[in-house]
Amino acid sequence: MPMICLSDFEAYAKKHLPKMTWDFFAAGADECCTRDDNLLAYKRIRFRPRMLRDMSVMDTRTALLGTEISFPVGIAPTGFHQLACPDGEKSTARAAEAMNTCYITSTFATCTVEEIAAAAPNGFRWLQLYVHCNRVLTEALVRRAEAVGFQGVVLTVDVPYTGKRRDDVRNSFQLPSHMAVKNFEGVFEKENCIEYGLPPNSIDPSLSWNDISWLQSLTRLPIIIKGILTKEDADLAVRHGVKGIIVSNHGGRQLDGAPATIDALIEIVDTVQDKAEVYLDGGIRTGSDVLKALALGAKCVFIGRPALWGLTYKGEEGLRKVLQILLDEFRLSMALAGCHNVSEIGRHLVQFSKL
Amino acid sequence: MPMICLSDFEAYAKKHLPKMTWDFFAAGADECCTRDDNLLAYKRIRFRPRMLRDMSVMDTRTALLGTEISFPVGIAPTGFHQLACPDGEKSTARAAEAMNTCYITSTFATCTVEEIAAAAPNGFRWLQLYVHCNRVLTEALVRRAEAVGFQGVVLTVDVPYTGKRRDDVRNSFQLPSHMAVKNFEGVFEKENCIEYGLPPNSIDPSLSWNDISWLQSLTRLPIIIKGILTKEDADLAVRHGVKGIIVSNHGGRQLDGAPATIDALIEIVDTVQDKAEVYLDGGIRTGSDVLKALALGAKCVFIGRPALWGLTYKGEEGLRKVLQILLDEFRLSMALAGCHNVSEIGRHLVQFSKL
Amino acid sequence: MPMICLSDFEAYAKKHLPKMTWDFFAAGADECCTRDDNLLAYKRIRFRPRMLRDMSVMDTRTALLGTEISFPVGIAPTGFHQLACPDGEKSTARAAEAMNTCYITSTFATCTVEEIAAAAPNGFRWLQLYVHCNRVLTEALVRRAEAVGFQGVVLTVDVPYTGKRRDDVRNSFQLPSHMAVKNFEGVFEKENCIEYGLPPNSIDPSLSWNDISWLQSLTRLPIIIKGILTKEDADLAVRHGVKGIIVSNHGGRQLDGAPATIDALIEIVDTVQDKAEVYLDGGIRTGSDVLKALALGAKCVFIGRPALWGLTYKGEEGLRKVLQILLDEFRLSMALAGCHNVSEIGRHLVQFSKL
Amino acid sequence: MPMICLSDFEAYAKKHLPKMTWDFFAAGADECCTRDDNLLAYKRIRFRPRMLRDMSVMDTRTALLGTEISFPVGIAPTGFHQLACPDGEKSTARAAEAMNTCYITSTFATCTVEEIAAAAPNGFRWLQLYVHCNRVLTEALVRRAEAVGFQGVVLTVDVPYTGKRRDDVRNSFQLPSHMAVKNFEGVFEKENCIEYGLPPNSIDPSLSWNDISWLQSLTRLPIIIKGILTKEDADLAVRHGVKGIIVSNHGGRQLDGAPATIDALIEIVDTVQDKAEVYLDGGIRTGSDVLKALALGAKCVFIGRPALWGLTYKGEEGLRKVLQILLDEFRLSMALAGCHNVSEIGRHLVQFSKL
Repeated sequence: MPMICLSDFEAYAKKHLPKMTWDFFAAGADECCTRDDNLLAYKRIRFRPRMLRDMSVMDTRTALLGTEISFPVGIAPTGFHQLACPDGEKSTARAAEAMNTCYITSTFATCTVEEIAAAAPNGFRWLQLYVHCNRVLTEALVRRAEAVGFQGVVLTVDVPYTGKRRDDVRNSFQLPSHMAVKNFEGVFEKENCIEYGLPPNSIDPSLSWNDISWLQSLTRLPIIIKGILTKEDADLAVRHGVKGIIVSNHGGRQLDGAPATIDALIEIVDTVQDKAEVYLDGGIRTGSDVLKALALGAKCVFIGRPALWGLTYKGEEGLRKVLQILLDEFRLSMALAGCHNVSEIGRHLVQFSKL
Repeated sequence: MPMICLSDFEAYAKKHLPKMTWDFFAAGADECCTRDDNLLAYKRIRFRPRMLRDMSVMDTRTALLGTEISFPVGIAPTGFHQLACPDGEKSTARAAEAMNTCYITSTFATCTVEEIAAAAPNGFRWLQLYVHCNRVLTEALVRRAEAVGFQGVVLTVDVPYTGKRRDDVRNSFQLPSHMAVKNFEGVFEKENCIEYGLPPNSIDPSLSWNDISWLQSLTRLPIIIKGILTKEDADLAVRHGVKGIIVSNHGGRQLDGAPATIDALIEIVDTVQDKAEVYLDGGIRTGSDVLKALALGAKCVFIGRPALWGLTYKGEEGLRKVLQILLDEFRLSMALAGCHNVSEIGRHLVQFSKL
Repeated sequence: MPMICLSDFEAYAKKHLPKMTWDFFAAGADECCTRDDNLLAYKRIRFRPRMLRDMSVMDTRTALLGTEISFPVGIAPTGFHQLACPDGEKSTARAAEAMNTCYITSTFATCTVEEIAAAAPNGFRWLQLYVHCNRVLTEALVRRAEAVGFQGVVLTVDVPYTGKRRDDVRNSFQLPSHMAVKNFEGVFEKENCIEYGLPPNSIDPSLSWNDISWLQSLTRLPIIIKGILTKEDADLAVRHGVKGIIVSNHGGRQLDGAPATIDALIEIVDTVQDKAEVYLDGGIRTGSDVLKALALGAKCVFIGRPALWGLTYKGEEGLRKVLQILLDEFRLSMALAGCHNVSEIGRHLVQFSKL
Repeated sequence: MPMICLSDFEAYAKKHLPKMTWDFFAAGADECCTRDDNLLAYKRIRFRPRMLRDMSVMDTRTALLGTEISFPVGIAPTGFHQLACPDGEKSTARAAEAMNTCYITSTFATCTVEEIAAAAPNGFRWLQLYVHCNRVLTEALVRRAEAVGFQGVVLTVDVPYTGKRRDDVRNSFQLPSHMAVKNFEGVFEKENCIEYGLPPNSIDPSLSWNDISWLQSLTRLPIIIKGILTKEDADLAVRHGVKGIIVSNHGGRQLDGAPATIDALIEIVDTVQDKAEVYLDGGIRTGSDVLKALALGAKCVFIGRPALWGLTYKGEEGLRKVLQILLDEFRLSMALAGCHNVSEIGRHLVQFSKL
């Protein structure tokens, strides 16, 4: 089976993963309206492509908070990569390093931050953070990540409680006994790990804007906030000194009825302007989706499920292949739209009367 | 089969009920456009959820005309609960009492108001009223309900004649011989009960706004009016002294082509303001549907068919389970949208540009 | 099989008619966009129903150019009724007479106007006219119809040439040898009847506005024009002295891409005001469709295919049943919308923000 | 199987062509959104047809840059006609000549321009041009075409690189060994022809607006530009002295997410006015599609895939049949819309409130 586009990897993963794992990766909250709208929303957008602009030389590079990446697609944080391939997050880190892009490592990785850093010593990584009720655990993790070279902290803000993913409840989803949330190994008793393979009450629902300064006090790394969907919260984020905002609805896994991220992007970009960088995740399946997100103001996008499909297919090599396809498709879409580099991508590329 | 969400109960009921009963519960008028639009309309609405607001303490309570309920979901009036479970409306009353919410008992119950009151002596109940051509019967029923502690009278105003529900006509729907409209037992001869198991001409088509004062003269209970779909009628209701309005299209069983209730809600809320309470029924299937209705101005919603599915599954226990699921989902949706209590739910939660 | 609604008759006809006949009745032009949109357009319209208006007394009567009919649904002109039932147009005439409504008899009837008049001597009928290239034939037909009591002439204006109905071409549709366009019997040689069972070039493509006065010179009957879809043509019709306009796209059988008639209605009603009566055909399948058309300004609607299905089911009796169902549904829809009689039906019943 | 409409030819081709060839003809870029929207967009447009205008005499002729054609439908450039029929582009040329319309011959024909010209000596032809990295090859081809009577040069501007057509990649699409891009025979080594049966890097990605004057210096033929989708590029085209613009998205084979051509047409027509002629290709399947495109301002349309289906069916005869069907359908649509000739077709025919 030739792997031509991201949906080939999806089909492969659906066929080869145990049903419980596939369901966990694919899950959306409740009726999955938001999960599905993340994809459909791109298909409602039309380009205004420009012709005859000498496309012989092109450049897909961009930078995240000053660090150059080869093209504006990074790896979104998702948990439990050993469910997809034996080396888990080590494979992810190697693929991201090889493709010279940013990998946001999940708090709920099945490898420690130290193992991940050692696997790809020159990789560009941010640490995704769920704040634990026991703040000491979180502080330690931030310090460990900073010590091994992570360059940013991505605070997830849309999980005061876990969304209701029906299939996970039906399947009583749990991590297999030989896997663990390695960053906290020994901290939790195995038998307590009942919710999604995670310790119960492991995420602090009291998290609030006041905690941004607490987090800033722990680390010199820039804080990026993930899960913003309104201009009001984007404005608050800027006022609290965050350096980046990831427009995200958690892949449609939290509040069903939340807007597609590409639909929420514009008002946030307009509010934030150049006071922070704005990124997006959710629903990216082709290079032209990437181009649409950048045209509407995202500095970079991050892929979640497609990365897991790539890992499922062939570990590091599979994820490299997924990233390479997106790079090739994005470069081609840029060329066909008349953009030589990312600075030429803008709102003029989108046909607004049809939105 | 685990019961995770309301559609699990729907599937159970469809599988286990006799076809004639299922068809009667499911029926919509004519081509069922309005019945189906009641659900679809929710799926067109998108939230504007807010983040980082300390969701550790939450409160789902509200009050209907001064009486506190545990969360803003009550039981809409539907007839013939013995079709769903042996104890009929007694089970419904017990479940509503256990969950501390409001149960609107139908005129066409298969238990008497006295039996229902005795089954759940501390329950909060309103009596739904169809006005009989023979007004004496209606007067007696109102007085009996008031005597046994019902706290409100819900006048249904959208049935001058019964809507055309094709499957009921095809099935020649009738109550089984061992069931009866118990509130009127002995009043009607069995053999006359030919229309939907009801006596023919049992509902007075001459009902008009003038009858509100007649009804007010019978009882000190507050009058709530059910079946309003326009601001003009909402304004008339307020002028006639009703205390509450249920925006309803009778589950799509009356006028096919009537708007989805969630679409009709806003103009009514804007007209009524604080001169009466505005509720809604129709199409509620998840906790996020409840949140949408409250965000657009409903004080509370009522569930019809889902209550019948719960009764079908396991009588009182089944209905409690349905209500518990809605409570859990509603609380989670509130948390994910950033609302600590119902007073924080408002129109700012809805993305109007997409409506 | 109980016949509850019009689609039951459609299913019966599809099952029992020879395929060539079914295809001919069902045919739409080209890709059938307009044929299908005629129905879909009704489903996009939402009512603003009014409650509590004493619906004990109701009246569905209206009048066409001064002649009273029992409810605002007449029989649109369609050809070849013997394809549906043995007595052909005689059955149609009897059913319309029995139900006290208007029957527009097609030029291409399989009975003569004299036979039709004799079959239902007290019926209210208009003659539909295709103008023949040989105008003498048309003049004679108008005079014969007037002589036997037809009360109006309906000039079809949307057939300079016959639309392309793919199935009819595939089937080489022709009338069976024992049937004939009886009004012109003997005029045409049988062997020439090659197009749709009609003589080739039997309709004059040169028909123009100038011919209205020619037609007015032939008869004292009022002229109604059928096939108008724009305000510009409606205005011309009024200026040429026509008394009625049927907004029609020929059931979607002529120009594919023409608007649904219910969508074209409003601008025509607004232009014509009370200078002529405005009717509509196309897509009426329920009583609430009738109510929608009247709410948007039609004085009456006409049914085409549903009449043929009724004739197919049981001749006169079948068509009476179709009309009775529409009458019952229309009366019920009026009651549920709060209208006592047709004069109370108006644009206020329609939710325009959703159109 | 009778061939009544263009989709009959499509079904025939799908059934009879080798899968690899069918896939190549049918292919769209990526997820085929643009390919499919090209057709769907026509179905969203509604006419405002006019009646009673004496349609006995009609004229479908128009002119392209002064050359009369029998009706406003020409043959769009597509490659490799020998994949469809043995005589390849010679058949195409003969059919276009027979039907008196314009044939835009592809650079990537499987016959030479000289063979094509000889096959239909009186045909009206334009040469479609892909500019080769080795400009000498392109210059020679333009001169050869001009020498054998081609009357225009159509520069394709939307292929700096080939779009990603998944099925072609899956199939490793290649020309069969007995076919060749004849215009360049001997120039390329067979073994290098790896991309879509074409030499790699055969199209120059550096093409820019400056090259228009280079092209004008090579030939006295008028330059037409193909692949414009915005008013900005249309304005540039006019400023660079092109005589015609083909609004095209390459049949949805280049940038997925580009607008349907009929949706892009209006802004280009408004910008260009009478400074150049504006044509369109993409999605034309019926005569009423042609009428819609002309109503929105196109001077002529061109068919791509339908021409290939016609060639597949019966070579020259098959393509003549396709063109004849479009001519008959277009004339009929004109008649049913009230237009005697192409000069009467205008924007007043389209219902803009529904766009």
